[in-house]
Amino acid sequence: MKFFCFALLACLNTVMVLAEDPLPSWKEAPAKQSIIDFVQNVTTQGSDSFVPVAERIAVFDNDGTLWCEAPLPNQAVFVLDEIKRLLPEHPEWKQDPAVAALLGGDLAALKSDQYAGLIKLIALTHTGMSPDEYTERVDRWLETARHPRFGCSYTEVIYQPMLELLDYLRANKFETWIVSGGGQEFMRVFAEGTYGIPPQQIIGSHARMKYELVAGKPTLTKTIDTLFVDDKEGKPVAIAEFIGRRPIACFGNSDGDQAMLEYTTIDNPRPSFGLLVHHTDADREYAYDSNPPSSGKLTTALEAAPQRDWVVVDMKKDWNVVFPADGKKEN
Amino acid sequence: MKFFCFALLACLNTVMVLAEDPLPSWKEAPAKQSIIDFVQNVTTQGSDSFVPVAERIAVFDNDGTLWCEAPLPNQAVFVLDEIKRLLPEHPEWKQDPAVAALLGGDLAALKSDQYAGLIKLIALTHTGMSPDEYTERVDRWLETARHPRFGCSYTEVIYQPMLELLDYLRANKFETWIVSGGGQEFMRVFAEGTYGIPPQQIIGSHARMKYELVAGKPTLTKTIDTLFVDDKEGKPVAIAEFIGRRPIACFGNSDGDQAMLEYTTIDNPRPSFGLLVHHTDADREYAYDSNPPSSGKLTTALEAAPQRDWVVVDMKKDWNVVFPADGKKEN
Ligand SMILES: [Ca+2]
Ligand SMILES: [Ca+2]
Repeated sequence: MKFFCFALLACLNTVMVLAEDPLPSWKEAPAKQSIIDFVQNVTTQGSDSFVPVAERIAVFDNDGTLWCEAPLPNQAVFVLDEIKRLLPEHPEWKQDPAVAALLGGDLAALKSDQYAGLIKLIALTHTGMSPDEYTERVDRWLETARHPRFGCSYTEVIYQPMLELLDYLRANKFETWIVSGGGQEFMRVFAEGTYGIPPQQIIGSHARMKYELVAGKPTLTKTIDTLFVDDKEGKPVAIAEFIGRRPIACFGNSDGDQAMLEYTTIDNPRPSFGLLVHHTDADREYAYDSNPPSSGKLTTALEAAPQRDWVVVDMKKDWNVVFPADGKKEN
Repeated sequence: MKFFCFALLACLNTVMVLAEDPLPSWKEAPAKQSIIDFVQNVTTQGSDSFVPVAERIAVFDNDGTLWCEAPLPNQAVFVLDEIKRLLPEHPEWKQDPAVAALLGGDLAALKSDQYAGLIKLIALTHTGMSPDEYTERVDRWLETARHPRFGCSYTEVIYQPMLELLDYLRANKFETWIVSGGGQEFMRVFAEGTYGIPPQQIIGSHARMKYELVAGKPTLTKTIDTLFVDDKEGKPVAIAEFIGRRPIACFGNSDGDQAMLEYTTIDNPRPSFGLLVHHTDADREYAYDSNPPSSGKLTTALEAAPQRDWVVVDMKKDWNVVFPADGKKEN
């Protein structure tokens, strides 16, 4: 009886999967088909290209791949808003060249001297507190801050087609990871609710915390020590350190993802898949590659894509909707 | 029909779970009962102490908690064997004070100057190669090396009761993690096959790898840079960095686990559980606490246990069998 039930359920599930389109926000075009082909390829029992569940690791960049990164990366807006919010408590900050550059809009000054100014601003807004206190600050900001162009919360300027892709991969027993230059603890605040990705599958830029018992209570404090920037060659390094297994699928949108795309797709003993989101839709979102509004420069990775067989998503042509709210308006 | 099948299966599963003893190698004693009480407590829907699946994180020390650490930690034997194996190719090593101390059995010299000698030996045997090459070396060693007392492979001097505990927790939808002072890549070689724990749930001491394309191929190289020692206060720091969520269960055997036991059980908004394996069985394994054969000193954590409500497992009294092979002999 038990076996009969299982067999019946398996049949029902197969029928349902065949009947439903797992990627309704993707237009019927080669990019969508290549995703479906790859997933069917590695999940078909008995085929040469079958990949065991334990090795179905998919890694996603965040800024510009899962959510909007223009006109400024969302975390940069958080830093700016936090500096402004905290300034009355810290009048001495006004004398800090980094704070002055930020308030004066002098982004070039923040980037000079190997981003020393930017790191100082991150230290002012991201350290000296517990991860719980930091989480509260990010939560409070996410509740109130609004995207300057779209007028909605920053957790709503996420890409509906990529949400469907995450779900589709997980339905096929992939483990979905974020590997992003963004702050690791920053993303962990919202990624579980927003993307269904738990904190332990989120790798980002991070620094070493400090642990001690304070008044008998376990206390972690965020610091800027041993800062690790999870970008470019740092991405495969972080994947090896946190995951310890080569991904078979990698999704990015900029030259900062090129190293992890290469690590995923070149010389991989397993079938592998690489994809770049190309921002081509100025009407619905933004159009940029070599000259982005802020982050997300895409030149060398785009050039390498044909040779590497990386799928390049043309946002304008490949996506029916961009943000979840767009789909709701249409329905 | 589908709902009926699910309901029937759920009933069958419940009956099976009630009928089977999940921890047969644990004697019917308070330690076993406390584990079962905790797990039932946090998994009972609707109870105040229910913990959602996403927060069921359990962390395990490895040396002395999941496998034997006497007369020497197994990885130290690997280092010694590798130095001997590689010495003919590296005659210059004989002039190295650390190598000389190792070959002369002068452990005190290796520990002096903040373990500088030991770190040098680790550098000689664990760096300058790819993770794949390192994995091959550990695999080859595990296939041939034998425990000096028990005469079996090092992956067989693992604790059968702890294997059952890992399975029991996973059956109750816990995610089981290793958080150990041992080498992260070292443990990742065997932990999936031996404990059912995948590489991405293994945190250990580790250093930053280097990534580059060599002759067009993605190449990671192990280094000793930014060495992180995952012991004592390092354990909660690593948990926060890798998992980003407080565990609700923690299993260790030495003072090196005290910080993560405190982090897990003090002031945790969720119900929590701490356990120390006390090595009390010189006949079947080893008996030690304040004066261990090598690693595994247990004094302050043992003193703190009653106040913290940490369960102390008396290996001799609480375990029917120690190693998996013991159980097979009895059957
Ligand atoms: Ca990006
Ligand atoms: Ca231990």
